[in-house]
Amino acid sequence: MKIRLFTALAILSAFASSAQDSLMFRKISDEIMLRGKCYENLRVLTKTIGHRISGSPEAARAVEWGEKAMKATGADKVWLQPCDVPYWYRGKESLLLKMGNDYKKVTALSLGNSQGTGGKTLTAPVIMVHNFDEFKALSADQVKGKIVFFDYRFRQDIIFTFQGYGDAVRYRGQAPSVAAAKGAVGVIIRSISTGADDFPHTGGMHYNDSFARIPEMALGNITSDQLEKACDKGGVMAKMTSECHMMPKPVRSYNVIGEIEGSEYPDSIITIGGHLDSWDVGEGAQDDGAGVVQSMEVIRAIKALGIKPKCTIRAVLFMNEENGQKGGQAYADSAVARKEHHVIAIETDAGGYSPRGIGLVMAPEQKAAILNYRNLFLPYGVYDFSREEGGTDIEPIHDKLKTPMGGLVPDSQRYFDLHHSNNDVFENVDHRELKLGAAVLTQFIWLVSQKGII
Amino acid sequence: MKIRLFTALAILSAFASSAQDSLMFRKISDEIMLRGKCYENLRVLTKTIGHRISGSPEAARAVEWGEKAMKATGADKVWLQPCDVPYWYRGKESLLLKMGNDYKKVTALSLGNSQGTGGKTLTAPVIMVHNFDEFKALSADQVKGKIVFFDYRFRQDIIFTFQGYGDAVRYRGQAPSVAAAKGAVGVIIRSISTGADDFPHTGGMHYNDSFARIPEMALGNITSDQLEKACDKGGVMAKMTSECHMMPKPVRSYNVIGEIEGSEYPDSIITIGGHLDSWDVGEGAQDDGAGVVQSMEVIRAIKALGIKPKCTIRAVLFMNEENGQKGGQAYADSAVARKEHHVIAIETDAGGYSPRGIGLVMAPEQKAAILNYRNLFLPYGVYDFSREEGGTDIEPIHDKLKTPMGGLVPDSQRYFDLHHSNNDVFENVDHRELKLGAAVLTQFIWLVSQKGII
Repeated sequence: MKIRLFTALAILSAFASSAQDSLMFRKISDEIMLRGKCYENLRVLTKTIGHRISGSPEAARAVEWGEKAMKATGADKVWLQPCDVPYWYRGKESLLLKMGNDYKKVTALSLGNSQGTGGKTLTAPVIMVHNFDEFKALSADQVKGKIVFFDYRFRQDIIFTFQGYGDAVRYRGQAPSVAAAKGAVGVIIRSISTGADDFPHTGGMHYNDSFARIPEMALGNITSDQLEKACDKGGVMAKMTSECHMMPKPVRSYNVIGEIEGSEYPDSIITIGGHLDSWDVGEGAQDDGAGVVQSMEVIRAIKALGIKPKCTIRAVLFMNEENGQKGGQAYADSAVARKEHHVIAIETDAGGYSPRGIGLVMAPEQKAAILNYRNLFLPYGVYDFSREEGGTDIEPIHDKLKTPMGGLVPDSQRYFDLHHSNNDVFENVDHRELKLGAAVLTQFIWLVSQKGII
Repeated sequence: MKIRLFTALAILSAFASSAQDSLMFRKISDEIMLRGKCYENLRVLTKTIGHRISGSPEAARAVEWGEKAMKATGADKVWLQPCDVPYWYRGKESLLLKMGNDYKKVTALSLGNSQGTGGKTLTAPVIMVHNFDEFKALSADQVKGKIVFFDYRFRQDIIFTFQGYGDAVRYRGQAPSVAAAKGAVGVIIRSISTGADDFPHTGGMHYNDSFARIPEMALGNITSDQLEKACDKGGVMAKMTSECHMMPKPVRSYNVIGEIEGSEYPDSIITIGGHLDSWDVGEGAQDDGAGVVQSMEVIRAIKALGIKPKCTIRAVLFMNEENGQKGGQAYADSAVARKEHHVIAIETDAGGYSPRGIGLVMAPEQKAAILNYRNLFLPYGVYDFSREEGGTDIEPIHDKLKTPMGGLVPDSQRYFDLHHSNNDVFENVDHRELKLGAAVLTQFIWLVSQKGII
């Protein structure tokens, strides 16, 4: 029997949360805070595999590990769902800047998906703009043959950093094609980073096919400050060398899926997921190792507590969130082909930080039904259900099946300090924050499974 | 003219927050998030002075630095307020445990205020109890001549960690006298720590004068786990050596105070403070370097924005919070002697983490008046005004003058991972979280100053 979240929750919205609900929330929290396995799982993922870009041997190892770790949760059923992913390869790279008398090597990272210099050294003068408007004001003569430094700062005044990210990330994504349109030969950006440090941050960029594919590199904030000062004086030169390129053929990879079959409505599916791939730097600990181990923890905790959820719960470790979303597409395509009914899909891809809210992308009536239970979450620090946050991997199923979508909203202050950088390592994940996020996800999914399925 | 917070806020409680209030909150936040000096101040305090236990040369240097840094905020007036503080000196220490065939050195810390072994080595068998109840069940014969290992675990199931701390900290404070009453010769405790690591945590203990002053040392959680297993098997021995002792005479020290004179009610004082002393390990970065630099940031931001607060605002860097509260007492004594009127006192001593609330210790009517403005704080992540949290340093003035009291309530998940340990260093403070806490304090103080003083 397939039921609709909306109908189910609307029926239930008459009921206030009960003492029994509160007790179950406590049991779930205790199970995870005291006996949770997600932190140890994260240690293994980050320290034995490390970063794992789509298509790489590390990603293949992550799939193997994920399948094994998913089985260890006690899931009723575990399987791999195939998808073909792009494989962007970094290779060697270096950037030398002449900001005074001599060239000096600086720490830089090529942006993901970008085409490098083919291993040759590109030497060119550097000109600086602070934003696209300043760039627009330049003539093609001023730009031609130059490397353009887009010195746009992440807006530290925006408190919810994902909003600041949305504002700044267009420079990473669009700058090369914007610059190439006026004859630039390369782009340097100030990293999309809130960090008070010098880590460069990589991340996805994309070319507009109308223009030349010029290389793009990111600098950390401290080096960017130095380059900014040097550009104010003028005469800056750069030597950019990089081998990065997109591999010619896609690589077969997989989503890892674990399932608990619903006791009453096995054909009604709740999805909780994070993504298994990462960029090819650091350890992909917060992005999104945290989401991977939290998603598995939901399954483990439900099984450990002997809960029999009324509907089916699936944890999905999506492949290729970072540069293709092929895993999310494969999951949605399969759901369509198999005519599955998806009650709700939740993603955790905003870091394993202390949870503050759950984003809800659904009809107002559905939100209202969930909000009847909001007080249950308050003892766990969760008070904010106002954000329209889902997740990249669940967007395809949301688009194709109109599946209601949600996302864990953790505290956002630290995420963009380390996101996509060599600083995104296990040591920068706190065990209590990670577990608390997993507990809140499990509580939410239990709630929807029991209350939304009558 | 002296006015009362209660009266003032009661009058104002009729007014809802306005768009102008919201704009001022934004200005304050922007000033601190974009141009804040607290993070750089913390870097200097932690990296050029480091830890600074009361009475030590480092504490004296911290006072000098604090006076200079306070003047740099632009405060109208800066002064030192004398107080005489105890000086507990650690000296050399070591702990060897025989948990199998051989003695092995483990990482341990003597607890603050404790009396060591006078530099001699105390060798004794170790017996383990998990809590005071288990200890009660032991006979004096079983305890006599032994070192007692109090293996009480910080309750990780309690979400608000300050509550877990309150539960566990009695073992640190009371175990030596409890054990000495039955003839024990020493105490080892599992650190009062949520850490998933092996850092031992120090902190204040106190002797009951009826019993022998036996030494007390703390182990990190990993070594505690090992000792627990070894004690289950039996035959554990320890060699404890420590020089720690309380110095015979108090040392003259100071609170550092900076003030902005109120434009309308100069005799009505709002206090914001943190404590300048720390334990003698790590760098005292979260405890309470964060509170020190945030308190100064309040003054700096108000001056930088050209705000003329109606009442007087004082930032106080209290001395000796950790083991004597002599600074807090001196501040209260001075207020009484000078017949000062204190509108409210706020402390920030729960770490420079992302703010979640402001604790309020005052009459229900006063709280209700403040709660009229709660929505102003929501964009800054502050939603919880329910906790009865003030601060150790402001308790004396609260007790003596009935001054309403408040405390910043940041996210608590990480605080007891590093509190009082060598892991409490600058690198474990996030610049955005620290600044956001300072912004919220400044917003709150501005609000009380303007709205509460009509």
